[in-house]
Amino acid sequence: MSLVIIGSIAFDTIETPFDRRERIVGGSCSYASLAASYFTDTKIVSVAGEDFPKEMIEAFNQKGIDTRGLVLTKGKTFFWEGRYGEDPNQRTTLKTEINVFRDFKPDLLPEYRKADIVFLGTIDPALQLDVLSQVENPKITAMDTIKLYIDKRHESLLEVIKKVDIFFGNDEEVKKITGESNLIKAGRNLLNLGPSFVVIKKGEHGVIIIENEFISGMLAHPCEDVVDPTGAGDSFAGGFLGYLDKVNSFEEKDIRKAAVYGSVMASFTIEDFGTDRLMSVTGSEIEQRYKEFKNLVSF
Amino acid sequence: MSLVIIGSIAFDTIETPFDRRERIVGGSCSYASLAASYFTDTKIVSVAGEDFPKEMIEAFNQKGIDTRGLVLTKGKTFFWEGRYGEDPNQRTTLKTEINVFRDFKPDLLPEYRKADIVFLGTIDPALQLDVLSQVENPKITAMDTIKLYIDKRHESLLEVIKKVDIFFGNDEEVKKITGESNLIKAGRNLLNLGPSFVVIKKGEHGVIIIENEFISGMLAHPCEDVVDPTGAGDSFAGGFLGYLDKVNSFEEKDIRKAAVYGSVMASFTIEDFGTDRLMSVTGSEIEQRYKEFKNLVSF
Repeated sequence: MSLVIIGSIAFDTIETPFDRRERIVGGSCSYASLAASYFTDTKIVSVAGEDFPKEMIEAFNQKGIDTRGLVLTKGKTFFWEGRYGEDPNQRTTLKTEINVFRDFKPDLLPEYRKADIVFLGTIDPALQLDVLSQVENPKITAMDTIKLYIDKRHESLLEVIKKVDIFFGNDEEVKKITGESNLIKAGRNLLNLGPSFVVIKKGEHGVIIIENEFISGMLAHPCEDVVDPTGAGDSFAGGFLGYLDKVNSFEEKDIRKAAVYGSVMASFTIEDFGTDRLMSVTGSEIEQRYKEFKNLVSF
Repeated sequence: MSLVIIGSIAFDTIETPFDRRERIVGGSCSYASLAASYFTDTKIVSVAGEDFPKEMIEAFNQKGIDTRGLVLTKGKTFFWEGRYGEDPNQRTTLKTEINVFRDFKPDLLPEYRKADIVFLGTIDPALQLDVLSQVENPKITAMDTIKLYIDKRHESLLEVIKKVDIFFGNDEEVKKITGESNLIKAGRNLLNLGPSFVVIKKGEHGVIIIENEFISGMLAHPCEDVVDPTGAGDSFAGGFLGYLDKVNSFEEKDIRKAAVYGSVMASFTIEDFGTDRLMSVTGSEIEQRYKEFKNLVSF
């Protein structure tokens, strides 16, 4: 199996009440592909500027990530600056510079077009649609989005939603898209817009998966030191889809396990700034935390 | 085993965006004892005014609840009026009339003093302490509280916390008492104030139990029609302690099951106004929903 991920590659400047990091590597594509890389071969589609460090691309490659779809172009890498409050769920965006993404037209390599699973990470819905039109016969397509595109790209976002199998979104986004305040009803309404699975990420409160035949959920790992929540949702999606690609199954039992592996990867991401923890985590740490999730909810 | 519950018996006027009920029976003692009554013999300690309906007391008795500790006195029953927003977690208190609780001095019957489990439901901490001093040799004591007492009765509240085995509180309360914004750390800090178990109720996001040796949690039932959230927390505590009293065990595995039965009872309470659903639910419905909780989180 093979997994293709499109999303942003970025420099992030992140401030928390305890610390600050300037221009560290981030972006939905970075988090999702690193999380997925522990489970399966992952190919990325993105764009970065000439300021992007070669060492980072080598680090991706060392994780087995195929970066041939990462276009390096004249100009500056996408930049995001944000600040977290005392409550890590409170996030303020201070600056966003689209930079090289302004003129990005993804053109997938022939090998990429044969992907089994395609993840349309958080990025302009027009780009998501463009990539979707290039893949030939994927077994599963999935997407994520953010409030910005719900507000500003509503029509094209609905087009993407109509076409994908799995929708990832946080509780606020699912409610906003459907205009329904009850989260479970909102998830069901979103199912009616196209996807077969709606995966609602609730941050520190865990995740709920809604499908026509079943509802499943998982609590978040009880983390005592949330260092930097950036990329938790992308890491969740990467772990989730990476696991499905590895087992080559989309049965209910595997969807449930995928949600746990997604939660595991997200729980590592928030333990350090940027992608640091995702870079250092080991396979045995992942399996150990999977067991901790089992223990958390068993009765 | 036997379970004694002290708490309020009240008339509640409740407004939601969809409906309104005037002066229906509520109060922490009503919800907790009805929820517990499905598992074990339950005795209540409370006070009501001469306006309290005899039929309600008979209904309690028919559920096997021992109401000899419910004092009926001259004056009016405790009254609370509140309004819920579109989001059922948003609650505004419009009116509180203490009424007969102003002069209430609980004096436990000899049989009550031999209780195995004592639940100090939400009520003034001074009353909680008074009851605690009267029970002779309980196996387990538990308490709940609300923001009002954290703000206005801080000293006596800390005294109760010091003396009980189980603390029930919602996430906001646990953070407020400890002054710690990370919920897991806050729970651990609360453990240091006295209790052996801190049970954090997170409403629609479920529950987390923190003990020195383990952390356990359960998602909430995915409810599509929250009619009236009043009493959900009290019902949780009643189901939790009722189950422990029934099995006469406080081992980790039973604490975990108790959390699920508590969640089951809370999930029924919110399906209708006041205590209506708790009055009508059957044993087989409870067992069915317990299985649904198992299915929700299994992987």
